[in-house]
Amino acid sequence: MNLPPHKLLTYLMDNDNFVIVTHLYPDGDTLGSGLALCEALEKLGKKAVVYNKHKVPESLMFLPGSIRVKGDEIIDRHTGKMDDSTQILVDVNNAERTGLDGISFYKTIVIDHHLTQSNYGDIRWIDPTASATAILIYRLIKTLDVAITHDMAINLYTGICVDTGTFRYSNTTHEAMAIGTELMKAGAEPAYVTDKLYNNWNEPKFLLMREMLNTMEIHNCVAISVVTLNMFEKTGANRDDTENLVNLPLMVNGINISAFYREREKDSWKVSLRSKGNKNVAYVAADFGGGGHRNAAGFTYKGNIVQAKAKLVSLLQDKV
Amino acid sequence: MNLPPHKLLTYLMDNDNFVIVTHLYPDGDTLGSGLALCEALEKLGKKAVVYNKHKVPESLMFLPGSIRVKGDEIIDRHTGKMDDSTQILVDVNNAERTGLDGISFYKTIVIDHHLTQSNYGDIRWIDPTASATAILIYRLIKTLDVAITHDMAINLYTGICVDTGTFRYSNTTHEAMAIGTELMKAGAEPAYVTDKLYNNWNEPKFLLMREMLNTMEIHNCVAISVVTLNMFEKTGANRDDTENLVNLPLMVNGINISAFYREREKDSWKVSLRSKGNKNVAYVAADFGGGGHRNAAGFTYKGNIVQAKAKLVSLLQDKV
Repeated sequence: MNLPPHKLLTYLMDNDNFVIVTHLYPDGDTLGSGLALCEALEKLGKKAVVYNKHKVPESLMFLPGSIRVKGDEIIDRHTGKMDDSTQILVDVNNAERTGLDGISFYKTIVIDHHLTQSNYGDIRWIDPTASATAILIYRLIKTLDVAITHDMAINLYTGICVDTGTFRYSNTTHEAMAIGTELMKAGAEPAYVTDKLYNNWNEPKFLLMREMLNTMEIHNCVAISVVTLNMFEKTGANRDDTENLVNLPLMVNGINISAFYREREKDSWKVSLRSKGNKNVAYVAADFGGGGHRNAAGFTYKGNIVQAKAKLVSLLQDKV
Repeated sequence: MNLPPHKLLTYLMDNDNFVIVTHLYPDGDTLGSGLALCEALEKLGKKAVVYNKHKVPESLMFLPGSIRVKGDEIIDRHTGKMDDSTQILVDVNNAERTGLDGISFYKTIVIDHHLTQSNYGDIRWIDPTASATAILIYRLIKTLDVAITHDMAINLYTGICVDTGTFRYSNTTHEAMAIGTELMKAGAEPAYVTDKLYNNWNEPKFLLMREMLNTMEIHNCVAISVVTLNMFEKTGANRDDTENLVNLPLMVNGINISAFYREREKDSWKVSLRSKGNKNVAYVAADFGGGGHRNAAGFTYKGNIVQAKAKLVSLLQDKV
């Protein structure tokens, strides 16, 4: 376990004006971490605000304080100068992923659990052993000797849940569980948070999943499925509603690879590949001009997909 | 928190021969609890065996020691006497649910977290505040001063996961989380256990789910779906594969009630009702001659279901 650097603690105590910056397309870890940190800094008498380039997604509006998240209105785009403020990046470690590239702050602090080569920021606290950035923020708030409020507990608990699949993924540490325990004692209710996170499908998304399942073909250990423009129209779903659909076939015993075609425009496809265990789909994605990691990769494809699917299945069966 | 009664501890230390009895249609809590307790008693030099009337389901064969679970072969059905052994019921509190009604043991111990009116057993330790029986067994093993082994950790962790939906249901206490933390330190790997528990659908079950989703109708807050004998035949799925399908529609925002018809024989149906929050489906089940609780009830129905479904939907919309 990696404690907050002394330099960070001193800096926070000695300064007063903070913009807490969360990443593009925000998730529960960046927002939960940012909101909890903002509340803690306010308890210490500081001025602080949470920034996100985009709107808080409706599914995360249950996070306490989410209504106070600000967008571009607080940034002086004209001058590009925010020189009286320190920005604190949470769950992100470079300017590109914040949407604030080109804006100058007095100083930049980076707090993140993602492994990175970047050296952006004046004070950096990166700990890739932490399951979520919310864990770093929990350690920081405790070290700053601020009491964890009910709202902070919900925000941080949500961050941990989102990044560990509620204690299901392999990145779940016993520290994550131990902090989860403390956050429950401070008022986070597991059933409340997980109901908000997991039972929040809208009807179009559910109907789209049904359409997708109906296209699913199984070829030995490979499942292949498709969502077309037609299906979006028929169900009223949108692109965001396809999130995670590619993972569904992997819940079946014996299916180790899932390939998912999403039609972007007529005969233009975004293809996502997911695998379990040591099946490496990155090579096959590279064959099609794409990229990714062992268990998650993708590529784009233009053309009729009938032969494309057959070729993909044969490569996935042979090369992976 | 309720500690093991002194009478129970003394009895376990003073006696040598135990049959640990798990409940009919065993789940991960009864088996995980039984296997961990058995190992702990063996560490204390006792003779112990885990009994189940049925076979261990394939999905739970990953539990360490599950291969040693015994069935009726250890029971002298001829005499009905097991007078040299003490039975310890885990996760069950009456003889009917063990399949050993009529068999006489020297003494009977009951360890369970289900609230009950029954007073079966010579020594009883019932604690409905515990999220799972595995939590009681953890407390017991610790009080007996036996070290938690890697195998015990997996068995007990699984018990807690099964009964709390891996820390998602409203019965998740911070004790459950704290014990989960300790079990991880003792070697339980969350990703291993949860992959075994949740990514173990067989292909027929998955195909049956698809058939079921295709029948789904949504009437305001009520979803209604059907599985027919035909679908079982077409997919190769069996009755057990319908488990939990009724819950799927509840992941959709705005659907608070799910009704699920399973055809048992031609024109004979088992109907399951599930609801979220304070929607009470027990009354409607009672109208059809069935019963249950506020959020989970059911009934059986003979006849054509076309009108039956319409009547049910109208009752569910009006009375619940």
